[in-house]
Amino acid sequence: MDSRVRRAFYIGRFQPFHLGHHKVISEISKNVDELVIGIGSAQDSHTPENPFTAGERIMMISRGLKDLALQYYVIPISDVYRNAIWVSHVKSMTPPFSSVYSNNPLVSRLFNEAGYAVLYSPMYNRTEYSGTEIRRRMLSGEEWKHLVPEEVVDVIDEIKGIERLKEVAMKGDIETLE
Amino acid sequence: MDSRVRRAFYIGRFQPFHLGHHKVISEISKNVDELVIGIGSAQDSHTPENPFTAGERIMMISRGLKDLALQYYVIPISDVYRNAIWVSHVKSMTPPFSSVYSNNPLVSRLFNEAGYAVLYSPMYNRTEYSGTEIRRRMLSGEEWKHLVPEEVVDVIDEIKGIERLKEVAMKGDIETLE
Amino acid sequence: MDSRVRRAFYIGRFQPFHLGHHKVISEISKNVDELVIGIGSAQDSHTPENPFTAGERIMMISRGLKDLALQYYVIPISDVYRNAIWVSHVKSMTPPFSSVYSNNPLVSRLFNEAGYAVLYSPMYNRTEYSGTEIRRRMLSGEEWKHLVPEEVVDVIDEIKGIERLKEVAMKGDIETLE
Amino acid sequence: MDSRVRRAFYIGRFQPFHLGHHKVISEISKNVDELVIGIGSAQDSHTPENPFTAGERIMMISRGLKDLALQYYVIPISDVYRNAIWVSHVKSMTPPFSSVYSNNPLVSRLFNEAGYAVLYSPMYNRTEYSGTEIRRRMLSGEEWKHLVPEEVVDVIDEIKGIERLKEVAMKGDIETLE
Amino acid sequence: MDSRVRRAFYIGRFQPFHLGHHKVISEISKNVDELVIGIGSAQDSHTPENPFTAGERIMMISRGLKDLALQYYVIPISDVYRNAIWVSHVKSMTPPFSSVYSNNPLVSRLFNEAGYAVLYSPMYNRTEYSGTEIRRRMLSGEEWKHLVPEEVVDVIDEIKGIERLKEVAMKGDIETLE
Amino acid sequence: MDSRVRRAFYIGRFQPFHLGHHKVISEISKNVDELVIGIGSAQDSHTPENPFTAGERIMMISRGLKDLALQYYVIPISDVYRNAIWVSHVKSMTPPFSSVYSNNPLVSRLFNEAGYAVLYSPMYNRTEYSGTEIRRRMLSGEEWKHLVPEEVVDVIDEIKGIERLKEVAMKGDIETLE
Repeated sequence: MDSRVRRAFYIGRFQPFHLGHHKVISEISKNVDELVIGIGSAQDSHTPENPFTAGERIMMISRGLKDLALQYYVIPISDVYRNAIWVSHVKSMTPPFSSVYSNNPLVSRLFNEAGYAVLYSPMYNRTEYSGTEIRRRMLSGEEWKHLVPEEVVDVIDEIKGIERLKEVAMKGDIETLE
Repeated sequence: MDSRVRRAFYIGRFQPFHLGHHKVISEISKNVDELVIGIGSAQDSHTPENPFTAGERIMMISRGLKDLALQYYVIPISDVYRNAIWVSHVKSMTPPFSSVYSNNPLVSRLFNEAGYAVLYSPMYNRTEYSGTEIRRRMLSGEEWKHLVPEEVVDVIDEIKGIERLKEVAMKGDIETLE
Repeated sequence: MDSRVRRAFYIGRFQPFHLGHHKVISEISKNVDELVIGIGSAQDSHTPENPFTAGERIMMISRGLKDLALQYYVIPISDVYRNAIWVSHVKSMTPPFSSVYSNNPLVSRLFNEAGYAVLYSPMYNRTEYSGTEIRRRMLSGEEWKHLVPEEVVDVIDEIKGIERLKEVAMKGDIETLE
Repeated sequence: MDSRVRRAFYIGRFQPFHLGHHKVISEISKNVDELVIGIGSAQDSHTPENPFTAGERIMMISRGLKDLALQYYVIPISDVYRNAIWVSHVKSMTPPFSSVYSNNPLVSRLFNEAGYAVLYSPMYNRTEYSGTEIRRRMLSGEEWKHLVPEEVVDVIDEIKGIERLKEVAMKGDIETLE
Repeated sequence: MDSRVRRAFYIGRFQPFHLGHHKVISEISKNVDELVIGIGSAQDSHTPENPFTAGERIMMISRGLKDLALQYYVIPISDVYRNAIWVSHVKSMTPPFSSVYSNNPLVSRLFNEAGYAVLYSPMYNRTEYSGTEIRRRMLSGEEWKHLVPEEVVDVIDEIKGIERLKEVAMKGDIETLE
Repeated sequence: MDSRVRRAFYIGRFQPFHLGHHKVISEISKNVDELVIGIGSAQDSHTPENPFTAGERIMMISRGLKDLALQYYVIPISDVYRNAIWVSHVKSMTPPFSSVYSNNPLVSRLFNEAGYAVLYSPMYNRTEYSGTEIRRRMLSGEEWKHLVPEEVVDVIDEIKGIERLKEVAMKGDIETLE
């Protein structure tokens, strides 16, 4: 790896990309030259927990970070459902990085066991800036637009994301058809 | 596709095939020339929710529909666990169809996004004519035979289905061995 | 299994379904009550060796067997790429059968090891009635229609099958993009 | 199979290998010449229910059985998530065996349907000698070392197993990243 | 999709990214606002045909396109080995696009069947600007650096790519161990 | 890992286990305390290149090594078809080891990139002691028994291995049915 570049890794599901994510990335950007942003559970979409496709999430992140002067890479990371190989999987799909920002204990553990330096990612208001909370608001008709970047509101509008979320949240999944 | 033939798609898990399914298909048959019947979660069997194999379910449907003058195709559809590719998966395994009958919001949504006309499937008494309810009755020793076509009773007898259901419902699965 | 019904299994890839297949099934039908027809490599399509989807092949078989008074089931069988579990895979997707018709040594071996009676399938002119030969003729513009049932010609016309075959045969596959 | 050797199969997840397992195997060893020990859910690790890798569990079993004069084979068995093919999967990965020891109803059912003799495995105190209970004690800081063979304590020490379990039990998994 | 943005899709394996790719993308950039660049066979690496990981290829492309004023997205596309679902797979992983640039007949066919406009990608000298040719030169010690952007030479140097290619090209693969 | 134990890793496909393998392991045993023996392509069987199941190969190795005073572990390693994650896959399925014996350039490369010491495995007559050569002899009826340990001859006899090899070598595979 080019040792002159400080490149870090940060992963989330971004369902949707919200201002909490934006704040974290903004803080991280002060300490690194480049950031690799992994989109977790990239293969999932059209479920209550993962309404948006990886492609739609890439759009949200790319537009939502336009105000940031940071060289970043957005990479879909599909689940492999095997923790012991997950770090190798991530490494093979991403530009090389030397540090990881995460507050998730499992992510930290796995990267630690693989020899990586894991740093706490900056804090933000996790009660409101939470994908779970934002999806709950979307479903109940409460206000949510102030919790995400303006550009994300546009993306969700364009793909009729609220309508989709409401429909897929109504009942069951393909694996439990009557 | 041959535009002279009106061919529709209908999917269920058919655990087991019951009189509610029969009624729906009977109603649909008035509006179509041919029906493609997908067997969902085809790969599953020997679980409390999916006691019967795809092959056994094919037997139930084929025998249970003998009284119906309808050209139909019964096709096992294995789960792919990715909603975004599910419609393509179904299409590749089935004769071409132009409409879909479903009351499941997710199935409707996915076919809608793929450009298909989705029609409400006819209604029936969903409290009793329900796979979940019938399996519950099978387990508790309550009466269930009046809820399925006679031929399905025969199939379940032949494969000793009640015995199997009771055994697999007793405890856990292969993924949670002590 | 219902012991009164003699049910057998026969598998092919049916790329496309041709008069050799028709003759074999016609001969088998004299000795059985019902036939389970497996469509091998069901997941494949749009390749030079497997141009047609499982759904399209189901159409070919269903129409091509209309003149036969035989109760049959057409079931897509996706490859599992593990010979040791293949028979279990087939069994789970099909109505129960007691005998297998096959001239393929591997198929025979695997069913034999699983305790099945395997019978030689009836012979026919394998030089002309061959999927490989028919696809070669389709590509080179030679005559092929006399080698398949009329109804199969119709299906291939409807799906513009020759055009598709010619395009997918031109170069490489998704795994070898430049 | 060599008919002179009585070889049996026994499967568990061994998270961790404990004295209950040891007692069962010790009892079985009186009735067989050789034992095939399957490690279930071999692909899983770094989760609250499956903290240890298959390799680590092999270590625990091998060292923990050192006091037993039994010819045994320890084989990782990855989940296939399809009950109908599970027995074939197990058979392909293991030396041939003629009987199965299990108290798990699903395991018994699947081997029974495949024609195997299934024997009840010997009883032991399942309240204390339980992987679930031992992992609970590990997490809460209660005593657990008396429930496993000494050698297993050593293995868990060497791999810093308690620390790992505590970290991976803290929150979520890779599939539910915020 | 935002109808004001003309966004196109272009896919290659980029083993490695070379001046032919650069020229194509440069030409396409005159006709579109944004370009989605798919990295095919993203899961492959350390083979004679696919020596570089998806992450390394992302580096090559990102650095190699620095001189181009184009908004682009580089997305790893893992193989799904099923042509019938491939377009859905690509769509789910990418920002929405309305046109596809490709000279590959299969890619064109699949996108055409899915209703996409497929345009011929601009021509370049395919004899020299070819991944196969460049890898051949790397192996035989011939000159290759003039065929790729300078930045790609740097990336390959950093990861010791030539050494890796030579080693993995020496003999067999994991599936054919002696 | 327990630093007092020198544990190494050695992998082959063992189709079948022959005297060359025996010699290598015998030599390695002089330098290590324990050896982890990986069975590559464990999921394959009933093919001309991989006639024997993982379980059968375990039998061959266990019996064939009876004359050796070495603590070893025989572990089936299924292919993952992704070189970048292969070492992690192996590690998760095996007791921890600190060195690797291999002459295969890809295996060496992958373990080297993962930070392992890779040692050349001892030499033997690779022209005769070769799985490929032994299978060729089995098929052509030439002498092969002097190339494997006596116990391996017994195993192959018990499972009627020559008969199986001859049948599966006759024609094609499940993926190329006519």
